[in-house]
Amino acid sequence: MKKIAVLLSGCGVFDGSEIYETVITLLAIERNGASYQCFAPNKDQFHVIDHHAQQPVSETRNVLTEAARLARGNVKPLHDLKVHEFDALIIPGGFGAAKNFSDFAVKGADAAADQDVVAFCQQFAAAKKPAGYMCIAPSLLPFVYGHGIQLTIGNDNDTAQALEQLGAKHIDCAVSDIVVDEQHRVVTTPAYMLAGSLSEAASGIDKLVAKVLSLATTD
Amino acid sequence: MKKIAVLLSGCGVFDGSEIYETVITLLAIERNGASYQCFAPNKDQFHVIDHHAQQPVSETRNVLTEAARLARGNVKPLHDLKVHEFDALIIPGGFGAAKNFSDFAVKGADAAADQDVVAFCQQFAAAKKPAGYMCIAPSLLPFVYGHGIQLTIGNDNDTAQALEQLGAKHIDCAVSDIVVDEQHRVVTTPAYMLAGSLSEAASGIDKLVAKVLSLATTD
Repeated sequence: MKKIAVLLSGCGVFDGSEIYETVITLLAIERNGASYQCFAPNKDQFHVIDHHAQQPVSETRNVLTEAARLARGNVKPLHDLKVHEFDALIIPGGFGAAKNFSDFAVKGADAAADQDVVAFCQQFAAAKKPAGYMCIAPSLLPFVYGHGIQLTIGNDNDTAQALEQLGAKHIDCAVSDIVVDEQHRVVTTPAYMLAGSLSEAASGIDKLVAKVLSLATTD
Repeated sequence: MKKIAVLLSGCGVFDGSEIYETVITLLAIERNGASYQCFAPNKDQFHVIDHHAQQPVSETRNVLTEAARLARGNVKPLHDLKVHEFDALIIPGGFGAAKNFSDFAVKGADAAADQDVVAFCQQFAAAKKPAGYMCIAPSLLPFVYGHGIQLTIGNDNDTAQALEQLGAKHIDCAVSDIVVDEQHRVVTTPAYMLAGSLSEAASGIDKLVAKVLSLATTD
């Protein structure tokens, strides 16, 4: 059975992992006959957003602790990764992927990435294991793979330009489709960068999960 | 298009709504051609559980605010309900349903229920609109429908006995199945009271959503 590492950035679209993208991903992994283990960095979130008022609040929450809500408690810190145990990596979106993995959401083309997160992802790249990044999570890709990585975040011009300044090659993509960088074995899909509903998000995410699994070879 | 009210109790299996059950429910509603609106009580959670350490912490969180994480911000307080706008009610499980809607998780057969939550649910009962309660959420049913309500929480003897002491008629049920109280138009399924995986949970929840929608008649 193929096993997928799923990297989470918290729990909630505005300051963590996008919940619907994550659950659709985990369900698709299962339904394709594979299994998963969630991981998250053990660090404070960039900030905490009250998702009802949709404003920041003066609270501190830990990424690993909040990610555990999305994993029913079963989440591991980054340093627990033994990459040989996994066949691929998938990273859901949500603002947490561009606030807690890097500061791309705030700094755009001037962003810097969390070096522990980059090192985690680079273990999959170094082992030539495939990876799927969705929604705004592809903003991490230039830091992991360097110049020339092909990706999509949908069709938002400003975001695409910032990613190109960081070295990526952006390709416009519909919510129901995926972009595949065959050389780097990286699959991306817009998900909630474009989705207006759960089923729209699922249309692309289901394709991403199937493609990542087809690229993965069991050790 | 049929419209379903979904009542949430927070965000996270141990102190709020079970996330996977909620997302599977919302996706099933969409895929059956219906729409939804989430609601939650505007009150403090019974407590906050660190889902990684799996222990209570000295924090206060609001049910409505945390439920907004599960609703991508789009959640309404209970008093915003106009029951004539809806065709049915569905309540996902998670410990929040037995900690924030009542104190059943703590007091069992001696439990009392939140009267605003009961009044919210009773509007659907009074209008003879169908309802679906999953996982531990059926622990609220004796307070809403009174003695004789038929339900399942799976096959846990102690929990079933406590519910029978509260006046319910418990029926053992597999994770992939549902129990239907035709008289009260109430559908229940065990979900994560028994599920060992997302797809197991989905097997019963998908049936519950389809049955609730089939019982619902558009105004």
